[in-house]
Amino acid sequence: MTQLSDIGEFGLINRFSKLFNTETPSSITGIGDDCAVIPAGKGSSWLITTDMLIEGRHFLTDKISPQDLGYKSLAVNLSDIAAMGGTPHSICLSIGISKDTSIEWLDQFFEGLHNLCKASGTLLIGGDTTKSDDKMIINIVAMGKANDNDIKLRSAARPGDNICVTARLGDSAAGLYALLNELPADETVKHLIQQHHHPKTFIEEGKWLGQQESVHAMIDVSDGIESDLQHIIDQSAAGAEINLENIPISSELAAFSKQHNLNPEELAITGGEDYCLLFTIDSSQFEVFADQYKTNFGCSVFKIGTIKENKQGIIYKKKGHPVKLSTKGFDHFH
Amino acid sequence: MTQLSDIGEFGLINRFSKLFNTETPSSITGIGDDCAVIPAGKGSSWLITTDMLIEGRHFLTDKISPQDLGYKSLAVNLSDIAAMGGTPHSICLSIGISKDTSIEWLDQFFEGLHNLCKASGTLLIGGDTTKSDDKMIINIVAMGKANDNDIKLRSAARPGDNICVTARLGDSAAGLYALLNELPADETVKHLIQQHHHPKTFIEEGKWLGQQESVHAMIDVSDGIESDLQHIIDQSAAGAEINLENIPISSELAAFSKQHNLNPEELAITGGEDYCLLFTIDSSQFEVFADQYKTNFGCSVFKIGTIKENKQGIIYKKKGHPVKLSTKGFDHFH
Repeated sequence: MTQLSDIGEFGLINRFSKLFNTETPSSITGIGDDCAVIPAGKGSSWLITTDMLIEGRHFLTDKISPQDLGYKSLAVNLSDIAAMGGTPHSICLSIGISKDTSIEWLDQFFEGLHNLCKASGTLLIGGDTTKSDDKMIINIVAMGKANDNDIKLRSAARPGDNICVTARLGDSAAGLYALLNELPADETVKHLIQQHHHPKTFIEEGKWLGQQESVHAMIDVSDGIESDLQHIIDQSAAGAEINLENIPISSELAAFSKQHNLNPEELAITGGEDYCLLFTIDSSQFEVFADQYKTNFGCSVFKIGTIKENKQGIIYKKKGHPVKLSTKGFDHFH
Repeated sequence: MTQLSDIGEFGLINRFSKLFNTETPSSITGIGDDCAVIPAGKGSSWLITTDMLIEGRHFLTDKISPQDLGYKSLAVNLSDIAAMGGTPHSICLSIGISKDTSIEWLDQFFEGLHNLCKASGTLLIGGDTTKSDDKMIINIVAMGKANDNDIKLRSAARPGDNICVTARLGDSAAGLYALLNELPADETVKHLIQQHHHPKTFIEEGKWLGQQESVHAMIDVSDGIESDLQHIIDQSAAGAEINLENIPISSELAAFSKQHNLNPEELAITGGEDYCLLFTIDSSQFEVFADQYKTNFGCSVFKIGTIKENKQGIIYKKKGHPVKLSTKGFDHFH
């Protein structure tokens, strides 16, 4: 009997999305981007996205504070809205809670959620609460709005585009490594765990990037750029070249990797959960654009590679020479 | 330490909804009805609802077919949209799947979901797939549309209104009883299990009821009328009187209850998962209304009681005399 592990998460999505996407009218963007897009009239659209987090798989209640879990549950959804150039509007929360969960824990979870709701102007407008026998389960669906002209799809990358990210990569994966290996929490480890538990949201950056005509395709980095960039080149019918020496790595990740004999490039490329934005931009516009971005947001974008016409997949290069990375991007069913 | 079981599901919802509802603008209906309501312009609104189903708690994979599970996962959400007088538009599905789930099982699950999507004109436009270590988890968020004038809230019941339901009650609860006790599947048991696994949707009925000015408050029967009617009287600042001899009970439930020494009224009132509609209607309009309903839908509505001015809770009467039911409506945390 065919098992799910044989076709993987994306194989499953392809399998059933064919069944449903054929019935979706062309005015609606269905399965296959960071958000679904439904026309809202007057040149704007609704963006809708959802994420399910399961205890033991996506978080460990003995490692993450309830405030951070409340924050992060929302942040991962806001990241998808940011990746389409949208503004968050509202969310519905479904939560499966074990019987012996304390009210204090829940109060702190809702405090963390509420703080990010307030900071991002997001309303909690509905949901479902139910008992879960053992594991805590959190599902948020988030709705956002965007001007139709500002929506950036995965399918819009063009050959010659620069590939950029809005933050240093791999800190979150290193933070998870530190948590799972129960490493002593020195300042470096604390920084990495903080990146894992409380990722920065790029909502304002995503809105601004949405408004730039020179920006073509965009996605958020949730599974690691190897996997997320693959979505862009698959949907744009293109290839990509990544220069490993240009992958931005924090001083904390560099020090941590050296200390624990890890490959920082591998963590940066395949680790995932960075929740920054990956986008492609007309290379002739990059210099002016990068200056404006720095002026607006006080930090830099990082140019890590180029979109290629040849559908070759992703080629990694080091000092101009192709190299292979042994590990694969995170796929939930492998 | 305070435990969740001390305050229950609705206590929890009250606790956190206070935090969030104060920030919700008055144009939006937030937590507290079957759906959230967001203005969509031109006198219409979006309706949004979500339900989380967890294996072992809401369904048993060795009892329900994957087709029925796909159907029911959507049906319970469409029921909430029907209860507001809305038309289904689209859904996002989050699914947590165990590693050893077969593709065949998933294909059949999606077949059942897809069939009801097609029948109800609902689009699957997005979602999230993830691995779950043991239990299957299904979360659907459904979006619908309604004319603002047709939206029926829980808070609109008026003293003197008749209380009605659109179907016989308790079959689903009896079906669950038969499943849990592994009773032999004779024709009666098959009927009851079918009602539990494949509940009829009342979408067209809900839309029509929404258009009737004489209909005031509406809700779907998910937890049992004791619990669901309580929401209506709480939010309408009223009381209710139910005449037990008017509770509609199927011949199958009557026979089954007799055979297994069960109280059919108790199953009908507290069992839940009927997914029919409970509504209140101006009593002076009832006769004309009931005739029209029967003409349109080929079956009757059932008048089971009256909304009272006195905030007395729900009073059950038998042949004019108050009686007490010992069991409580289903509350997930007790």
